[in-house]
Amino acid sequence: MKIGFLGLGSMGQAIAANLLKSGHDVWVWNRSPDATQKLVDLGAHAATSAAQAFSADVVFSMLADDKALRAVLLDSGLLARLKGPLIHINLATIAVAFAEELAALHEAQGIDYIAAPVMGRPNVAALGQLNILAAGPAPAIDRVQPLLDLIGRKTWRLGEKASSANAMKLATNFLLVSAVQAMSEAAVLVTRHDLPSAALIDLVSTTIFTGPVYQGYGALIGERRYEPAAFKASLGLKDVDLILAAAKQVSVQMPTADMIRDNLLDAIAHGEGDMDLAVLAEVEERRAQGEDR
Amino acid sequence: MKIGFLGLGSMGQAIAANLLKSGHDVWVWNRSPDATQKLVDLGAHAATSAAQAFSADVVFSMLADDKALRAVLLDSGLLARLKGPLIHINLATIAVAFAEELAALHEAQGIDYIAAPVMGRPNVAALGQLNILAAGPAPAIDRVQPLLDLIGRKTWRLGEKASSANAMKLATNFLLVSAVQAMSEAAVLVTRHDLPSAALIDLVSTTIFTGPVYQGYGALIGERRYEPAAFKASLGLKDVDLILAAAKQVSVQMPTADMIRDNLLDAIAHGEGDMDLAVLAEVEERRAQGEDR
Amino acid sequence: MKIGFLGLGSMGQAIAANLLKSGHDVWVWNRSPDATQKLVDLGAHAATSAAQAFSADVVFSMLADDKALRAVLLDSGLLARLKGPLIHINLATIAVAFAEELAALHEAQGIDYIAAPVMGRPNVAALGQLNILAAGPAPAIDRVQPLLDLIGRKTWRLGEKASSANAMKLATNFLLVSAVQAMSEAAVLVTRHDLPSAALIDLVSTTIFTGPVYQGYGALIGERRYEPAAFKASLGLKDVDLILAAAKQVSVQMPTADMIRDNLLDAIAHGEGDMDLAVLAEVEERRAQGEDR
Amino acid sequence: MKIGFLGLGSMGQAIAANLLKSGHDVWVWNRSPDATQKLVDLGAHAATSAAQAFSADVVFSMLADDKALRAVLLDSGLLARLKGPLIHINLATIAVAFAEELAALHEAQGIDYIAAPVMGRPNVAALGQLNILAAGPAPAIDRVQPLLDLIGRKTWRLGEKASSANAMKLATNFLLVSAVQAMSEAAVLVTRHDLPSAALIDLVSTTIFTGPVYQGYGALIGERRYEPAAFKASLGLKDVDLILAAAKQVSVQMPTADMIRDNLLDAIAHGEGDMDLAVLAEVEERRAQGEDR
Repeated sequence: MKIGFLGLGSMGQAIAANLLKSGHDVWVWNRSPDATQKLVDLGAHAATSAAQAFSADVVFSMLADDKALRAVLLDSGLLARLKGPLIHINLATIAVAFAEELAALHEAQGIDYIAAPVMGRPNVAALGQLNILAAGPAPAIDRVQPLLDLIGRKTWRLGEKASSANAMKLATNFLLVSAVQAMSEAAVLVTRHDLPSAALIDLVSTTIFTGPVYQGYGALIGERRYEPAAFKASLGLKDVDLILAAAKQVSVQMPTADMIRDNLLDAIAHGEGDMDLAVLAEVEERRAQGEDR
Repeated sequence: MKIGFLGLGSMGQAIAANLLKSGHDVWVWNRSPDATQKLVDLGAHAATSAAQAFSADVVFSMLADDKALRAVLLDSGLLARLKGPLIHINLATIAVAFAEELAALHEAQGIDYIAAPVMGRPNVAALGQLNILAAGPAPAIDRVQPLLDLIGRKTWRLGEKASSANAMKLATNFLLVSAVQAMSEAAVLVTRHDLPSAALIDLVSTTIFTGPVYQGYGALIGERRYEPAAFKASLGLKDVDLILAAAKQVSVQMPTADMIRDNLLDAIAHGEGDMDLAVLAEVEERRAQGEDR
Repeated sequence: MKIGFLGLGSMGQAIAANLLKSGHDVWVWNRSPDATQKLVDLGAHAATSAAQAFSADVVFSMLADDKALRAVLLDSGLLARLKGPLIHINLATIAVAFAEELAALHEAQGIDYIAAPVMGRPNVAALGQLNILAAGPAPAIDRVQPLLDLIGRKTWRLGEKASSANAMKLATNFLLVSAVQAMSEAAVLVTRHDLPSAALIDLVSTTIFTGPVYQGYGALIGERRYEPAAFKASLGLKDVDLILAAAKQVSVQMPTADMIRDNLLDAIAHGEGDMDLAVLAEVEERRAQGEDR
Repeated sequence: MKIGFLGLGSMGQAIAANLLKSGHDVWVWNRSPDATQKLVDLGAHAATSAAQAFSADVVFSMLADDKALRAVLLDSGLLARLKGPLIHINLATIAVAFAEELAALHEAQGIDYIAAPVMGRPNVAALGQLNILAAGPAPAIDRVQPLLDLIGRKTWRLGEKASSANAMKLATNFLLVSAVQAMSEAAVLVTRHDLPSAALIDLVSTTIFTGPVYQGYGALIGERRYEPAAFKASLGLKDVDLILAAAKQVSVQMPTADMIRDNLLDAIAHGEGDMDLAVLAEVEERRAQGEDR
């Protein structure tokens, strides 16, 4: 089987490396070609164009954002020239509406489109321990399951409608940013009542809120340490805008998302866009900051 | 040592039963005296008045709300007649400002006041596995630690200022209701994008949000099952009002709490005040409900 | 007819002076007695106690807040000693629930209670041009109408339920603070798009939003001038809390009020509580303030 | 002078008719050509293409939305083929970012671009009494001022940066929807305290909030009458999204706009998108609606 892989950021690098373990030919492509070298050293072939990478049986893509994917696949005319049988697995977190558009365009070309956004950071990806949220044509997913098993600990099957997987991914991201916002408000409350916020985080993350989110972001909030950023505030805003767009599409209100969006704008206005999402705590801190402190 | 215990609701019952294991004399009192019988059967003495229950070395109270405690202890003139040495351990979740008032009034009488609100439901209390958030005079807490060890799995020491423990308890409750609100919004988002909300809950509660809150409330939301209530929406509103009052006292904003307060008012206006807090999901559902559904 | 008047702040002074024009005996009382002298010079009698001021046919009160009124009338035991026939006209903006309590307590003594909160500042009061929102027993209002005509340009009759007038007054105050908040947000929007906010205020206050609120507060916002305060931010917060309490009582949500409450807390946390309500514009300004400005 | 006019909806019709009074040749164009007949009867020439309408000295456009303008002017390649001297006056309310893009593209062709969004409804436009918010090259505005005087009561000059006029227009629309939202909340508050909301509207619209917005929308809210729509809720949402986009561009938060956006989504989810913006009152009503009402 011939496998293509487009998009070699830190996530893409780690995932593609695991796919090489399949023994199949893996053709990798990236907009700035430097990123391919490391994978070539591991046995991958360097595709000289996106089209060459798409000349395969199964193609994975993990491009930076909707705009990049639109440029590579649609504006270039590439998708219109492709024909099935071909399975395209899009691992990126993209807009729900864009996923719907892509699913329809692929179907028109006789190509299977699988939305498979992933949960996990590059270190988790490197271990092949991602959670994969997969939706699309069932036979196609069945067929690529062995590949998905190389990159993830579990594939969550979410039906035949590809965009549902993107909605699910956005919902999980929403829960994540909501938890960070809630911790931010709670942290300011306890500090103003003479307790360190770290005490709150320690308490809840070992009792009612175990799991990596409260522990990880909680630690950053407890220490008021926002750099280096694992998840930048500016990317958080990008996700929140995707969430609100997905909600608007189905006339759903998400008041928590509105509020977090405002707080992220506040962070960005104060030059904190490149800091970690946990900087939401600093926004709350700033609002409660009296003159005499 | 003689121990008094006031307030025998389901939490008080469970806790007092564990204190009986200390071998000390335990004098129990409740506003409606029926509740004492079960504990008397276990070896407790029935106090005939709140004053008799306070005639002890250490007194625990777990009264229903601020109003009940104010009636029993202050309006009755009881506290003004008490003298130290005496340690009063208040297990209830009360207002921060009221805790400050109580601490000062006890100190004026030479009585040690320990704020020790607890985390956990009656079944956890019955197992002696509560988390106890304790603040107040350190020597007094040291002295009662063996008693606290009978009722809780861990005592979190939060300094000498009693009201800090109440602020901490309110902060944890805030995180809890925030998580329920976030799940409610996310649940509506995914259902409108053609996935069952239970799939979302299953995904996150076994990956990034382990722990009892996402699992427990998530299950209720996933099934849209709000009765019987483990934590009533109307009591949720009471807590949120305590949270906002504690925040106002120190000029802190809690926009998430504002929003949840509105949603709880919505639930109550729609006759859902006695349902579980998870009914917040129904509020979101109602707002997104189109005519053609 | 003998008239009593309690509460001689700047509003009370101005109103009582107009009542003197009735030719009736007016007995004035104030907690700090200095304030009576000016009215005595105009022909009023100085009451030596609140009870003496209430020994009249018609009594007006304009005390500072709910707490002051409760102290003077209820905690003192005064109301319990009074008997009708007597008409008490309460001009102050008080809580709806307190108005209900007062109406019931007066009725039990056979005393007519009229809620008559007023719209207008001291300079308007001095001209006898207030708008009076009156509710209570119709025959009593009919009887005092000649007195109300001395102090107001119009009496708005709002039915027999006294507390309705307080709800109406709070609703108008809510509209006022909402307009100030909206102008604050709009002002920041246009300034960041390179136009002076004064241009926006000039435009709207002479076209779609005539009337004193947009003009008056708009001018303060346009000039970023918040002192001296005509309506202090801290008093704005007091009113917003009364509004939210009145809404909670009937399970009504007021999300705009929530948000303004947060912004007022922000102002207070930043030492701006004694500035004019228009300082809400500064809260928005602060949130949008980038590092490089 | 030859004048072009594109976009003959109800606003465009009314404005173009007034321009005919200039005595100049007016060439009108509309996507669906039926709309031109009435103006031809009044002396206009029917352009057979957008390009023909742009073959003029001064061109006005009043197209339905950003998408329509983009289609006619950019996607078609029309603008790229145009050359100055030519003055394009865009009367429509468009996105600030799109206005910036258009200003740059026109400048590149040597064409003067004037943003001139207007305040007023078709009946006001028919009377030539619009308020015109004009920004762009000063000499160009000076030159077309006699034409603007035919269609408006006043031209508000807002500097050389065209997009500023669009920001200003969005700010006024924001104030309008904010006033409607505030009235909606206040109306529910007073009705639940046993007063008709019409009493509130009558009170404030004749005292502190004169001007057409509180009177006009207030009347609809007071009567709970939302059809026929003068300003549809769905178009309100379009404007609020433009407002939030303009704010995001400069990292400004507009929490009132967020909240109104949610309420408009609620209206749309309940099939009220074609009703008047005043239906925001119904959203509040629904949220406060208890089972027993």
